[in-house]
Amino acid sequence: MTAYKDLMAVERATQALAQVAGRLGWDQETMMPCGAADQRAEETGALAAVLHTRRCDPRRGDLLAAAEVGGPDEVARAQLRHIRRDFDRATRVPEDLAVALARLTSRAQGQWAAARAADDPAAFAPVLAEVVRLKREEAAALARGGDLYEALLDDYEPGMTVARLDAMFAEMRPRLVALRARALAADWPTLDAHFDEQAQLRLARELARRFGYDFARGRIDMAVHPFSSGSGDDVRITTRVNESDPFNCLYSTIHETGHACYEQGIEPAYRLTPLGQGVSMGVHESQSRIYENQLGRGRAFCGWLYGRMREAFGDFGIAGEETFYRAVNRVHRGHIRTEADEVQYNLHIMLRYDLERALIAGDLVTGDLEAAWNDRFAADFGYPVDRASNGALQDVHWSVGLFGYFPTYSLGNVYAGCLYRAMQGAVQGLEGQLAQGDLSGATAWLRDGVQCHGGLYEPGEVIARACGQAAGAEPLLVYLEEKFGALMP
Amino acid sequence: MTAYKDLMAVERATQALAQVAGRLGWDQETMMPCGAADQRAEETGALAAVLHTRRCDPRRGDLLAAAEVGGPDEVARAQLRHIRRDFDRATRVPEDLAVALARLTSRAQGQWAAARAADDPAAFAPVLAEVVRLKREEAAALARGGDLYEALLDDYEPGMTVARLDAMFAEMRPRLVALRARALAADWPTLDAHFDEQAQLRLARELARRFGYDFARGRIDMAVHPFSSGSGDDVRITTRVNESDPFNCLYSTIHETGHACYEQGIEPAYRLTPLGQGVSMGVHESQSRIYENQLGRGRAFCGWLYGRMREAFGDFGIAGEETFYRAVNRVHRGHIRTEADEVQYNLHIMLRYDLERALIAGDLVTGDLEAAWNDRFAADFGYPVDRASNGALQDVHWSVGLFGYFPTYSLGNVYAGCLYRAMQGAVQGLEGQLAQGDLSGATAWLRDGVQCHGGLYEPGEVIARACGQAAGAEPLLVYLEEKFGALMP
Repeated sequence: MTAYKDLMAVERATQALAQVAGRLGWDQETMMPCGAADQRAEETGALAAVLHTRRCDPRRGDLLAAAEVGGPDEVARAQLRHIRRDFDRATRVPEDLAVALARLTSRAQGQWAAARAADDPAAFAPVLAEVVRLKREEAAALARGGDLYEALLDDYEPGMTVARLDAMFAEMRPRLVALRARALAADWPTLDAHFDEQAQLRLARELARRFGYDFARGRIDMAVHPFSSGSGDDVRITTRVNESDPFNCLYSTIHETGHACYEQGIEPAYRLTPLGQGVSMGVHESQSRIYENQLGRGRAFCGWLYGRMREAFGDFGIAGEETFYRAVNRVHRGHIRTEADEVQYNLHIMLRYDLERALIAGDLVTGDLEAAWNDRFAADFGYPVDRASNGALQDVHWSVGLFGYFPTYSLGNVYAGCLYRAMQGAVQGLEGQLAQGDLSGATAWLRDGVQCHGGLYEPGEVIARACGQAAGAEPLLVYLEEKFGALMP
Repeated sequence: MTAYKDLMAVERATQALAQVAGRLGWDQETMMPCGAADQRAEETGALAAVLHTRRCDPRRGDLLAAAEVGGPDEVARAQLRHIRRDFDRATRVPEDLAVALARLTSRAQGQWAAARAADDPAAFAPVLAEVVRLKREEAAALARGGDLYEALLDDYEPGMTVARLDAMFAEMRPRLVALRARALAADWPTLDAHFDEQAQLRLARELARRFGYDFARGRIDMAVHPFSSGSGDDVRITTRVNESDPFNCLYSTIHETGHACYEQGIEPAYRLTPLGQGVSMGVHESQSRIYENQLGRGRAFCGWLYGRMREAFGDFGIAGEETFYRAVNRVHRGHIRTEADEVQYNLHIMLRYDLERALIAGDLVTGDLEAAWNDRFAADFGYPVDRASNGALQDVHWSVGLFGYFPTYSLGNVYAGCLYRAMQGAVQGLEGQLAQGDLSGATAWLRDGVQCHGGLYEPGEVIARACGQAAGAEPLLVYLEEKFGALMP
């Protein structure tokens, strides 16, 4: 056990440094003076280099190999599994490729932002081609003869396969396209009032608290793009405010609260160890999505929220809970993934999944990306893309090398569908609680079934344990069809 | 030159990591959730260990030795001098002693805070004795047969000697005791009004801007104890607000602006190199003090500030500039160093200097510290200490191992006196500018004469170059005697 203890001491320091890097990122998005950007890039780079050196350290490999031959218990086995995956991942990619990718994606992100601002996909295509080329090299180093895309996917959703994703999306796509067509033909109420910024922020803080966010171990600040950051006892969230659309602030706060509660809910003994973070992007997104959608946009909670918003903002022109519920769940034409409703969101993901698979496979060149995007969009959404910034240039992900990340958003929705079905069977009086703005039963069930485990179980296993069966798309699809079927008169 | 270039690349990354550590400290005092303290201690410790390893790295020593045999130019010589001092300092202290000191002082700080809250010096004496013991060991490792205290002083004011401090304080003490006695016998006006928090903060921001603070490379937040943090393009300051005493917020802001402008004013080419920070604590304090006192509390600027405060707060019960000027410079009984007026401040420092020298020399045991403090205080200040939290327990410094730091506060005042005399001769129309609230002439002279050089010259040399002669206490003493003589009718 000495090797294991020594290894864990090293890992603990590495995890602590990774938390520092995360805090630096938080600072950059919320607090950093505008003139500090260049210096910050050097600071971030220096810390990233320290972390990279630690991840690849041969002594880490030696300790790991020695620890693996002991007779570890369940927790130790899980710790070693995470460390092994991380060490192999870090050491399989040649140092010069890792450096080249870091440099290139830093530059590509700037070029993407400029191309998006100018609506000029041709300006971005060459640098994106270079990113794809290096990501293919990286994938080849990781895949060792296996599927390139799957090797990248494994960074974000360990154990997931392209075969399972293909089957899942094949099941989802026709039913969501059909539901989308019906929903867009219906009429939906909209808000048309002014919602004071400070009143929105006060309500956002109250919602975060009601959904279980512990402010003693976190804080809320403003950022251009809302995010959650940090693990253990320092998990921070951000939000933004639009004074004509309070749902932007309130539901992004609930979404980030879901991410943050996952981190805050992990078994305290795992803090600053490999088990001390959410186990995958998909499971993380399942928590943010079930907080935001199944709970936050459900009929019962919307009834309570309507009354609470009338107290906070006065009469805002929506007469009655039912109309409010329809306004919250309004389905509408829109090109931007992050603003999509529950019906259309996964169509965005499938589009990106198929295109990024083709890019990594070498079946699509970046010069043809915009046309491929626009064709697919028209087919699935039923209306055209009007400009590249609303199409192939809308997301930052590819510019920074995030290939294989998009499907985890849909996996999060699928997991949330499974968890919600199980929660409805397990939590007594759930609807009555939600109608009172009381999330304690729902969030306690999620904490005990999912959040507390951190990285102890693999992503698929933690969902299956919580739900009593393997995850699949059916519960989500039934939920969406029933919910939106009832919303369309 | 290859060794020099390689060395500087290593140093640059180390400096960047040191900036990250500084930002983490800033976050802890301004933003960190209360429940994150334990985790933060691990994060801070992990980063400190990385920095320590880099400082002591034998490869650093090899590169340094190789670079020193080249024919470096003035800037390179100065860089190498700083790196040599830092490397020798880091490697002379045995690793286990460094670790023991870090652990002990972390614990001692908590025990000091508890003892201060309970006004119980006996509870703190044993742990302080242990700190003194380890600091003596550390000093012995650094001093290599020389004076123990001087070896510690060298961390904060390189090149300064106890002989010069002794002579300086011997010159200052009788004249300041005499001036203190006269000043305490006089009547001074006080403020008695309510000063709105937000109006104070708006004015504080305006003052920072007028004194030259660049908000594009910094920001102001609230903290329990005001401080300045960071170098280069990210230099942040903090302040605090007392609604019955606006001078607390306004003058602490001007003080921290002085520190911050020093960092912001350093030659940009030195950013993230050993030359890219203020050269010593004493020179740093000279900038904060001349901004705060000679400029900010001078008659001309007070005239302008009086008008500006009337605009900000309305009539606050002070009739006329002259009365306002006397209120700003009020001399009053008080036990707390950080709240002391210009006349008594240095008496606080001399008291601590003599006591900490005796502790490090082994001539005073911590059990006798309180009595020694109280005797000396009564002798120099003319009124007794009422309780330990107002006496030997008031400052955090000794609990965290800062021995040799206190005299740099007085050196800052002495340097400020020298600089102000030289500035008066060099800046045309200075008084007229200050009377208009225009600090641009004064701060440009300081930037060009002192701030821009960063660590290029040794502390004594940078002051001597700016002033045209070596620093001494006489200009400060004459300034104080003239200023306060004129203020006492």
